[in-house]
Amino acid sequence: MRVLGIDPGLTRCGLGVVDRDKNGRLTMVDCGVIRSDSQTPIHERLLILQQELDRWISKFSPDVIAVERVFSQQNVRTAMATGQAAGVALLLAAQSSLPIGIHTPSEVKAAVSGSGRADKKQVAMMVMKILSLKVRPTPVDTTDALALAICHHWRGAQIHRIEKARTQERIRVAALKKAR
Amino acid sequence: MRVLGIDPGLTRCGLGVVDRDKNGRLTMVDCGVIRSDSQTPIHERLLILQQELDRWISKFSPDVIAVERVFSQQNVRTAMATGQAAGVALLLAAQSSLPIGIHTPSEVKAAVSGSGRADKKQVAMMVMKILSLKVRPTPVDTTDALALAICHHWRGAQIHRIEKARTQERIRVAALKKAR
Repeated sequence: MRVLGIDPGLTRCGLGVVDRDKNGRLTMVDCGVIRSDSQTPIHERLLILQQELDRWISKFSPDVIAVERVFSQQNVRTAMATGQAAGVALLLAAQSSLPIGIHTPSEVKAAVSGSGRADKKQVAMMVMKILSLKVRPTPVDTTDALALAICHHWRGAQIHRIEKARTQERIRVAALKKAR
Repeated sequence: MRVLGIDPGLTRCGLGVVDRDKNGRLTMVDCGVIRSDSQTPIHERLLILQQELDRWISKFSPDVIAVERVFSQQNVRTAMATGQAAGVALLLAAQSSLPIGIHTPSEVKAAVSGSGRADKKQVAMMVMKILSLKVRPTPVDTTDALALAICHHWRGAQIHRIEKARTQERIRVAALKKAR
């Protein structure tokens, strides 16, 4: 199973591809960052992001795309840019018929470091440890994306079970309502 | 000149197509709303939005796409969803090689009603007056999108002049720096 983690952003969008083998061992396949110049008009920056993300999806054929949910940002302006970038990533997942996973920063931090309040440095160190990396990938958006992919590997199965139970419950309630 | 105004949103995305003839008279070509069910996963909602927007662009061949910039929302969660929807709209503009215009809600309100603090009802009334509509289009997202298109027709030329002057200034400064 292969997860592409995306830490959405316009100035820097972090990417991390992580595989899990049948023994549960995680390995890094690749990681990187997509940049776009802040002087470039916003719609063209989104197109650059889309084309690069598309290239990553084609190259690595992930089974699932994990995107960071950000709603605790300091200012709404930054959240808007992050939202636009996340929108492009999620749209591409749907266009590629890939399932998605959305995790909050504190879920990611808790998954890799055991604490939802770990700082970026701690997260990066844990990512290196989990994936047995000798060199720390930079910039930090890259380790954030790898942490997201790790988090999805570990939380994914659990979430899938909950979602399945929820869907079955919805079907059951709908059937009950119809029967009345 | 034809403007497609988009009031981005996931639950309801307002659309308004407005033409301007050589005498400056504005007419409504069409308006509507794209809806998606909140029970549908977010990436599939974005795909529905993208496909419908694409259909509108193909059908009406606008010369420019005007999108509302929202950064004054009450909560960042709503701003995220709006940002994701706006991201999809802006990406489509870039993919269709269409220029974009981004206007804030207060710019739109000021353009159509003379006041940046006009309420939605006042904006809807002014839209009806400007476009000589006998019936008020509903829901309100539709009149918001029409107001956005009107705003772009009226502010667009002005913004274009300012942008052109800015670009020339940047080129001039760059040339000066190079010459030193």
